[in-house]
Amino acid sequence: MKKLTTCLLAVTALTMAVPTSAQFAKADDAIKYRQSALFVMQQNFSRVAGMASGKIPFDAKVAAESAVVAEFMSKLPWAGFGPGTDKGDTDAKPEIWAQKAKFDDYAKDMQIEMGKLAVAAKAGNLDNIKSAVGATGRTCKSCHDDFRAK
Amino acid sequence: MKKLTTCLLAVTALTMAVPTSAQFAKADDAIKYRQSALFVMQQNFSRVAGMASGKIPFDAKVAAESAVVAEFMSKLPWAGFGPGTDKGDTDAKPEIWAQKAKFDDYAKDMQIEMGKLAVAAKAGNLDNIKSAVGATGRTCKSCHDDFRAK
Repeated sequence: MKKLTTCLLAVTALTMAVPTSAQFAKADDAIKYRQSALFVMQQNFSRVAGMASGKIPFDAKVAAESAVVAEFMSKLPWAGFGPGTDKGDTDAKPEIWAQKAKFDDYAKDMQIEMGKLAVAAKAGNLDNIKSAVGATGRTCKSCHDDFRAK
Repeated sequence: MKKLTTCLLAVTALTMAVPTSAQFAKADDAIKYRQSALFVMQQNFSRVAGMASGKIPFDAKVAAESAVVAEFMSKLPWAGFGPGTDKGDTDAKPEIWAQKAKFDDYAKDMQIEMGKLAVAAKAGNLDNIKSAVGATGRTCKSCHDDFRAK
């Protein structure tokens, strides 16, 4: 029960942190917004992932800074997936809006794992960072597999 | 003297918050990164500015959320203006790299004003938000006038 309560609190905190009432002047702005937020997130996540895989020399300070930015960015794209933003210059599949609850679950999973990665990166233990990168990467992949056009 | 010390501390804090050692796989990524960060910032700033000018109904919660995101984003674009990122799909003028100290000063001014806007938005007083939006907008304009191609 305690675990469930902790989970629920975490999810509530996440939901509250997302500016769901964000408004965009036009659908194209919303599409560009989510793509921009995801790109900034991906660049920061990839830097940490590169260190985890040994492709980039491990720098604890840079890893922590990058993971903190990636975690912040993980909260932003979702405001750009509102109704009417399925058409345009986008790889987002129509299934996002047809299966919104599933998409939202993926989005929450990713934010939770990205949060854990930020905790690991701030603590600076490379083994823990590697595990967290793996878990976070799997949430990215699940969502891309189901909801992003090839 | 006290004022100078406060200023220096503020500038030091800002400089520390910027991941200056951020690395990009290629120059195009750096360019897309700074453009993406600036777009996410601009969308959030514009929402608050729209409320300040009366174009959008004032919603204190949304204004505060948006200003906090805009402040966070204001720290990110600068990592994308490294050496060799002057050529490509960009409106950034060569003067940015020729007059780097001036550009950096503008960047710092904008971050300081965006920080003040976030403070005002969290406090929720619309008159103070209006003043802060004006001051922040002027720092955007100064930099665009000197360093962004028309």
